[in-house]
Amino acid sequence: MIEDKNQSLTSLTEFGEFRLINHLTQNFKISQETTVKAVGDDAAVLDFKNKKTLVTTDFLVEGVHFDLSYMPLKHLGYKAVMVNLSDVYAMNGKASQITVSIAVSNRFPVEALEELYDGIYLACKTYNVDLVGGDTTSSTKGMLISVTAIGEVEEDKVVYRSTAKPNDLLVVTGDLGASYLGLQVLEREKQVFQVNPNSQPDLTEYSYLVERQLKPEARKDIVELLEALEVKPTSMIDISDGLSSEILHICSQSKVGCDLYEEKLPLDPQVISTCEEFELNSTTVALSGGEDYELLFTVAQDDYPKIKANPNFTVIGHITEEAVGANLVTRANQKVELTAQGWTALKSED
Amino acid sequence: MIEDKNQSLTSLTEFGEFRLINHLTQNFKISQETTVKAVGDDAAVLDFKNKKTLVTTDFLVEGVHFDLSYMPLKHLGYKAVMVNLSDVYAMNGKASQITVSIAVSNRFPVEALEELYDGIYLACKTYNVDLVGGDTTSSTKGMLISVTAIGEVEEDKVVYRSTAKPNDLLVVTGDLGASYLGLQVLEREKQVFQVNPNSQPDLTEYSYLVERQLKPEARKDIVELLEALEVKPTSMIDISDGLSSEILHICSQSKVGCDLYEEKLPLDPQVISTCEEFELNSTTVALSGGEDYELLFTVAQDDYPKIKANPNFTVIGHITEEAVGANLVTRANQKVELTAQGWTALKSED
Repeated sequence: MIEDKNQSLTSLTEFGEFRLINHLTQNFKISQETTVKAVGDDAAVLDFKNKKTLVTTDFLVEGVHFDLSYMPLKHLGYKAVMVNLSDVYAMNGKASQITVSIAVSNRFPVEALEELYDGIYLACKTYNVDLVGGDTTSSTKGMLISVTAIGEVEEDKVVYRSTAKPNDLLVVTGDLGASYLGLQVLEREKQVFQVNPNSQPDLTEYSYLVERQLKPEARKDIVELLEALEVKPTSMIDISDGLSSEILHICSQSKVGCDLYEEKLPLDPQVISTCEEFELNSTTVALSGGEDYELLFTVAQDDYPKIKANPNFTVIGHITEEAVGANLVTRANQKVELTAQGWTALKSED
Repeated sequence: MIEDKNQSLTSLTEFGEFRLINHLTQNFKISQETTVKAVGDDAAVLDFKNKKTLVTTDFLVEGVHFDLSYMPLKHLGYKAVMVNLSDVYAMNGKASQITVSIAVSNRFPVEALEELYDGIYLACKTYNVDLVGGDTTSSTKGMLISVTAIGEVEEDKVVYRSTAKPNDLLVVTGDLGASYLGLQVLEREKQVFQVNPNSQPDLTEYSYLVERQLKPEARKDIVELLEALEVKPTSMIDISDGLSSEILHICSQSKVGCDLYEEKLPLDPQVISTCEEFELNSTTVALSGGEDYELLFTVAQDDYPKIKANPNFTVIGHITEEAVGANLVTRANQKVELTAQGWTALKSED
C-alpha cells in the first residue's frame, strides 16, 4: 500500500509543492469564527478578541512514534491531530486551528498523502478545528509530521500544571494502559506476519486496545463536561507519557506530593485479561504505558460532590505536602515512591 | 564537528527528553508582554488582546534545505527562525513568539544541539521574539527542524497577497540573487574540499553572497520603516522561492497582471561579478534564485513620493489588468511572459 510500485499511483515529483498543498487541502472548510484567513498567504490570520491564545506543537516520526506496517495512514493523520488537541484541552481550552507540516520521502505516492489528509480532515471536522497552514517537503527517509495546535481560553478558565494544592483530589478520565497494550498486540501480529505472511490476524478480543492505539480521541468532551458541572480543576495535564510521569510533572511544578492508590486505577477488562496473557503487571502498564490521551487533573475537595457519580471520572488519590513525596499506595497498603518510566523505557524491557 | 566520534561529547541518549528541552532552553528569557506562559506546560498561553494573531510554519530538512558540511549549526538555528519571521513581516505584522521542534538522529551529540540553540537564541534576542514551546525527538536519519512563528497585527494594518490593484507600483527591498549564488559558491568549495581536504577556501570576494545564504536577516526593519513612512502596501509577500514565483502569487491571488522591468532588478556588485564567473544570467538568478527573504510589495501610486528616495526600496515594475498577463520587460524592451522556476528547478540545470 505504501511502496510506490504501482504504476497507477501518482509520484510526488509530478506535483509541485504549491499544487500538492492545494490538492491535499482543497476539501477543508473553515468553520471557526476566530479564523480570519487560513491557508494561502504568508501566515494565517486569527482573531481571539479578548481571549487568551494557546499554542502547542508535537513531532511524529516514522520508526520512532509510528510504524506504517500496522498504522493505516488515515488513522495516523487523525492521531497526529489528536495528540496536539489533547494538549489544548489539558489547558482547559477550546482547540480552534491547526497547522500541519509533512516531510516525506519519494517512496510515498500522492495517494498516500491523500489518505493521511483524509484522517486529518476527519479530525478537523469531528473536533471542529480549522486547518490554517503548513508545509509539505521532501525527507531523505520516511515520513515526519509536525502539527501545531492553536486554541483559545478565557483568562479565568486557563488551568496550569503548577497550581495543585495539598488535599486536592487527583482525578483521571477514562481508563489507562489500553493504548500501550494495543501497541504490544500489533507488534506481536507484525512478527507473526513476518514469519507467515499468509496469517490472518483475529484481533477481535483486543479491539478496544487496538482502537485506543490506532485511533485515540482527545477529551474535548471533558472540557465541556467540567464547564457544565461548574468545576474548574486546580491543575491539569494530558496523559501522553504515562500516568506516573504526568503526576510527577504536576507534583514538581506545583511543589506538592501525592498519594496515588493502586486499587483505584481504572482498567478496562481487556487490559486486565491481556496483561495476564502477556504476563505484564497491569499497574505498571497503567502507570507507564502512555499514549492514553486522557486528562489528569486535581480538584478542590469541595468539588467532589459534583464529580463523584460521573462515570467519566475516577478519583485515584489526593495531593499532599511536598515533603511527603509522590507515592503509590499499593493494594497491600504499602507506600512506594512513584517513578516515571515512560513508554520508551517500558518498551526497551520487552 | 558533527559526527559523535569524540568521547568527550555528550550522547543524546544520556539526556531524557524533558532534561534535554530544559537544558537547551534554560537561557531563553521572555520579553514579550503578549507571552503569558512560555515553555513548561501542555501549551503556551498568549494574549493578543484586540489584535489579530498571525501563525506561520516552515519545515527545514537536512539534505533537502541545508547541508551541514558547510552550514554551521548556529547559523542554521538562526536561519530556521528567520525563514519563519519573514512570513510574519510579509503580513505587515510584528513577530512575537516561536515554537521550535527538532528531530535528530543519534549521530548528533548534545553539544551540536547546543550550537543550534545558540543560533535560535541569538535570533530570538535580536528580533525580540520569545521561544514558547517545541518538541525534541529522535529521527531515523539526519536533522529536521519545524518552526512555527506567531505574531500580531492590528486589523487595519494586515496586508495580504490578494489585494494588489492595477497601476500599483511593484517594489522590492534590498537586492536579489545573492543567497542563491552564495549556495553555488559553497557547493563548489565543498567539491574542491572533497577532492583535496587540505584546501583552504578563500571566500573573501564572495563574503556578501555567503552571508546572505548562511545568515539571512528577515526584514523586520521594513515593517517598521513602512509604518514610519505611513505607507501601507496594497499587497505583500516575502521572497523565499524566487522573485518571479512570488510575483506570480500576487498576480494570481489578486487577479492582476504586471510589467516587471529587467533593468530595474537590484543586484549587488558581487552578484554581477559572480554571475560572470559562473556563466549564469544575472536576471535568471535574480528572478529564480530564491532564499532572499526580502519583501516584495505593491503600493498605490500616491505613495510613490514617500518611498522614492529610500535606498531600501527599488520600484521594479507596476501592476496591470489581469488580461495583460505577468510580463518581464527585457533590456531590449521586449515583453516575455514571467514564469516561475524556483530554486530547485534552477539547481537541477547545473
